[in-house]
Amino acid sequence: MNQRVAQLIPIGVPDGRVRAVVEAVTPAVDGGRFAVKRIVGDSVVVEADCHADGHDELGCAVLYRHTSDVDWRVAPMQPLGNDRWRASFVADRIGAWRYTISAWVDAFRSWRHDFARRTDEADLRVAARSGAALIAGAAQRARDSGDRQSLERWAHELLQAAAGEIDALRRVALDAARAETAQRWPDLQHAWTHPVEFPLVADRVRAQFSTWYEFFPRSASPEPGRHGTLRDCVAMLPYVARMGFDVVYLPPVHPIGRERRKGRNNALAAEPGDVGSPWAIGAAEGGHKALHPELGTFADFRDFVAAAARHGIEVALDIALQCAPDHPYVTEHPQWFRKRADGSIQYAENPPKKYQDIYPFDFETADWRAMWDELASVIEFWIGHGVRIFRVDNPHTKSFAFWEWAIARVHAQHPDTIFLAEAFTRPKVMHRLAKLGFTQSYTYFTWRNTRHELTEYFTELAHGPGHDYFRPNAWPNTPDILPEVLQVGGRGAFMARVVLAATLSANYGLYGPAYELLEHLPREPGSEEYLHSEKYQLRHWDLARPDSLAGFIAVLNIARRENAALQSNASLRFLPIDNERMIAYAKSTPALDNIVVTVVNLNPHHGESGWVEMDLQALGLPADEPYEMHDVLGDQRYLWNGARNWVSLDPRRSPAHVMVVRRRLRREHDFDYFH
Amino acid sequence: MNQRVAQLIPIGVPDGRVRAVVEAVTPAVDGGRFAVKRIVGDSVVVEADCHADGHDELGCAVLYRHTSDVDWRVAPMQPLGNDRWRASFVADRIGAWRYTISAWVDAFRSWRHDFARRTDEADLRVAARSGAALIAGAAQRARDSGDRQSLERWAHELLQAAAGEIDALRRVALDAARAETAQRWPDLQHAWTHPVEFPLVADRVRAQFSTWYEFFPRSASPEPGRHGTLRDCVAMLPYVARMGFDVVYLPPVHPIGRERRKGRNNALAAEPGDVGSPWAIGAAEGGHKALHPELGTFADFRDFVAAAARHGIEVALDIALQCAPDHPYVTEHPQWFRKRADGSIQYAENPPKKYQDIYPFDFETADWRAMWDELASVIEFWIGHGVRIFRVDNPHTKSFAFWEWAIARVHAQHPDTIFLAEAFTRPKVMHRLAKLGFTQSYTYFTWRNTRHELTEYFTELAHGPGHDYFRPNAWPNTPDILPEVLQVGGRGAFMARVVLAATLSANYGLYGPAYELLEHLPREPGSEEYLHSEKYQLRHWDLARPDSLAGFIAVLNIARRENAALQSNASLRFLPIDNERMIAYAKSTPALDNIVVTVVNLNPHHGESGWVEMDLQALGLPADEPYEMHDVLGDQRYLWNGARNWVSLDPRRSPAHVMVVRRRLRREHDFDYFH
Repeated sequence: MNQRVAQLIPIGVPDGRVRAVVEAVTPAVDGGRFAVKRIVGDSVVVEADCHADGHDELGCAVLYRHTSDVDWRVAPMQPLGNDRWRASFVADRIGAWRYTISAWVDAFRSWRHDFARRTDEADLRVAARSGAALIAGAAQRARDSGDRQSLERWAHELLQAAAGEIDALRRVALDAARAETAQRWPDLQHAWTHPVEFPLVADRVRAQFSTWYEFFPRSASPEPGRHGTLRDCVAMLPYVARMGFDVVYLPPVHPIGRERRKGRNNALAAEPGDVGSPWAIGAAEGGHKALHPELGTFADFRDFVAAAARHGIEVALDIALQCAPDHPYVTEHPQWFRKRADGSIQYAENPPKKYQDIYPFDFETADWRAMWDELASVIEFWIGHGVRIFRVDNPHTKSFAFWEWAIARVHAQHPDTIFLAEAFTRPKVMHRLAKLGFTQSYTYFTWRNTRHELTEYFTELAHGPGHDYFRPNAWPNTPDILPEVLQVGGRGAFMARVVLAATLSANYGLYGPAYELLEHLPREPGSEEYLHSEKYQLRHWDLARPDSLAGFIAVLNIARRENAALQSNASLRFLPIDNERMIAYAKSTPALDNIVVTVVNLNPHHGESGWVEMDLQALGLPADEPYEMHDVLGDQRYLWNGARNWVSLDPRRSPAHVMVVRRRLRREHDFDYFH
Repeated sequence: MNQRVAQLIPIGVPDGRVRAVVEAVTPAVDGGRFAVKRIVGDSVVVEADCHADGHDELGCAVLYRHTSDVDWRVAPMQPLGNDRWRASFVADRIGAWRYTISAWVDAFRSWRHDFARRTDEADLRVAARSGAALIAGAAQRARDSGDRQSLERWAHELLQAAAGEIDALRRVALDAARAETAQRWPDLQHAWTHPVEFPLVADRVRAQFSTWYEFFPRSASPEPGRHGTLRDCVAMLPYVARMGFDVVYLPPVHPIGRERRKGRNNALAAEPGDVGSPWAIGAAEGGHKALHPELGTFADFRDFVAAAARHGIEVALDIALQCAPDHPYVTEHPQWFRKRADGSIQYAENPPKKYQDIYPFDFETADWRAMWDELASVIEFWIGHGVRIFRVDNPHTKSFAFWEWAIARVHAQHPDTIFLAEAFTRPKVMHRLAKLGFTQSYTYFTWRNTRHELTEYFTELAHGPGHDYFRPNAWPNTPDILPEVLQVGGRGAFMARVVLAATLSANYGLYGPAYELLEHLPREPGSEEYLHSEKYQLRHWDLARPDSLAGFIAVLNIARRENAALQSNASLRFLPIDNERMIAYAKSTPALDNIVVTVVNLNPHHGESGWVEMDLQALGLPADEPYEMHDVLGDQRYLWNGARNWVSLDPRRSPAHVMVVRRRLRREHDFDYFH
């Protein structure tokens, strides 16, 4: 179908002569209420059930446009059988897209289909005259295009042939090339267009594939006991870059409240000199739009962002919409906070627990419009300072309506902004946040340990109902969570968990240097809080420690960069392995030109081994020839044969293989191999 | 929640303070685009995901109304866990209903939940004052109801208790009965109501449970060779009633075209005296609103409808929207038909096949409004003559938009009208017709023969995505279809197929007397057309033939009437049986007070036997005691024990058991049984 004629499709005009219907459109999130997520350059495959009464032939097309375009572009759909149709288009620009589907009873195609089946000579002559009229109609719609004349000529020849020799008539009528020309100008006056313009967001690539390193700037000082600065952070960047991270995420960098400040290890009262929690935002020096004076100036901040960029690293900031009692908002906008019956401001609480150093915003305030505006402006403020990635603290305690509005407002101006939702809460709340616009979401990975748990959960993430909008970001630890497996599992657990995060999820991150330095002591038994947590005090880290996992993580992140298979989750498939303390899975590119098989020993204390069963057919591997498995962690090569192969992993060396699969093309090379 | 306060729920008003969301509402057909189907008196179970930010307590309610009511009624929802909520309401009137869901953050419930968990005494006193304010708010909303005073008193007492002894304060604050009163008057100013008013149709019971007998009135004459009349049909009614049918469906009763009339066995040209096909509607005597003169007068028709009613039988008419060439419409409204290029009217065709005795309506005519109006008036005309059930011939060759409009128009005035769609076409077309309003639908049952085919198909019908709108009506034969199994399977096949239809589907029908008289010869080998089909000629049937299945069918239909389990499909579950030429399944009432297990030998030629595996737990049967299986076809009783039991069926006697399951309560009766 021609591009120009698509503009003639009547959208939403009711007419009793409209016979085609379109239903069951995919992809679609909640019937088009929320956007499908893709990354720029993706080929978006759209399908629908399209049909009409009777036996006429249909024409169907996907209409699509970037929201900044006025005109729809059009992709003709192909039938898949059983009234299912498909087309795809490339989302070639970042930002918001819309698509819908139009279908129509195609008189010309129906005529041609019937004509080819006619046997009665008199009928053929009558039908030829109908066909000539249809072709003349197409010619008219072709207007001043080059097709007009040739279609007029065809209509004329067909009319003449109608009176002539019957085989010649058939040839003229069923000319395939001319039919294609006519089909470029279908009669769309009774086309039906699905009334929903389905939204789609094309994010930049880092929305789908990113590698995060979280660290506390105030612990970045090379001198123990001195408060770290943004300049110290610049000095740390080469270390982070060598490990292969492409996002550094800083906890809040704002002034820290003094009122009711928490002490070390979350003590109710701070001692003199205690630095407080960066999440207790706001003090006399300012609030969410200020920098903590001890970290440096805005010039230092700009330098840090620029230095990171030179290393190929982006800076992500924390958006924690809450206030310390001495945050300027509290006095400037007291109506944004809830009052207790005694007139004091309501602190955060979850009875019987109280968080008296934190004042939550009241999303039921009558002054919500002004509050929303101010809170969104916080994000825009930091965008103005070069930040395009935000990790949002506890988004599930702010209203859904606010986030949907705020993210849309930011994206309208800055579609390259990435929002990561830190919400470890009820699954439907996490999904709602992802639907309403968060680019990425924290997951329950942190607490999924057994093969059964990991298989079930990552199958759901990759292939479940959320796969069109929920992009997981897997974290083996955070400043809030030192999971039990890391407390008791030793080095083997640290290695296994980071391999799982990095290979199961295209987005992952970790909180360092605690992670690579194997920090594993909890505040008290049964707690998931770190002992001497950086949330409440400065720490000094010896980055050069010989037992550091920095080198291991660097190799792992190189594997992610070099293997496209690890850069999305859609292809994830788990492989059977006959030892339940091991897990195996494959990821691959659509063309199968990159396949990575990961096998992890989930027992951090002992060696485990088992037979992995490869799905040779799905992975395009030969059943009758050996293929090479190159473990990029240990840089070892194995020759595998057939479906079942033996793997043995000792956590004292490495609890995992991350193996690039290579089909071997040259026989002579095979031969060399065995010598 | 109180009924009156529900009217205060703000529907569709956007406010930033609205925090609750509602999603994933069930039941819903295409997100509320089409109606869910139920029968009057059904308890409609509605569920949704309801949640809000944070940890506050929610209130949720289903709002529902019959479309003729202005006010919504309200059913408070209960949480099922994982943010899923449920309520039900009884659709106590026939016709169109709407329902939606409202959810709100419930300040009073949240307060009470927190209060119960507080330990700090000072906090309890402050919280008591907040609670008193919330209760006072509820009192205000209670206005002039009896609750107002008692809530005011409670608020007052709570304020006083805030200063008193702490255990007494707790008692006053957490009073359960008073909390229930307060919860009747929630603060709904920030409630969120799902914007879709989900449509539901409550049909009368016969929409779900009906037993159809189709016969040709013109063959009803007791004298061979004489054209049957409606008076002859009256005389046939006792015979039909004895067999237990509650719907008699007559092929078109209108004047039959003379132009291009088809002869016996579909001969291209009729011989003098040939009666033609009743589906070639319209002649000089009139069209769709006339009676074929040889059948009788409108007075005869009224008498026939009244006589049927006395037998508990309803009359169903055929709506075949097409014309014989001499139908009055053709000359009165030539614009309703498509023209060929030679100016003649386009007859029905599917090249190279031609149906020159039939002119289809052109649903793309510019005069579609007048045509739709006239065609809908045909249905209304027969409603005026006492008909409320219509079997619609080939609805899939008329436009979807027409049917949706016409059925809605008829239902608005006559919500008790039942439409059965005769569409054996592509599955998605059949589903669309069911969605847009057809009450019942023909199925592919006619061609589903093996256990695998039947199991897969009826599982889909009972539990698949269409179960909320697609009501199957299973036919083992029709005047158009003599399936192969009946051509070759003999009496055993006729018995098995009618048992399958009658027990797998709560709606079923057959075309008689051809069926009970075992008519099995095709027009030619490989054809599914009957030899000497009544579609083209009169037939005379000897209803008293000793080999007639009339008695067998009567017993079967009595079993359907006496066993509620057979009157719907929702409970259908297939039971394993270790012989693939047999099939077994159970149906039960929700309370399990009626359970019917059917076992059919699908091999019409030989006896088969096997072990049936009962799902004892699901059917509420004891694992350790015998239970009685009463085969109501043969009136035989079997004592079964445990899950696995032996069944042997000989098609020469009966190819099926239809067994009512009876738990035996009295031990002494058991004892008798073995003596």
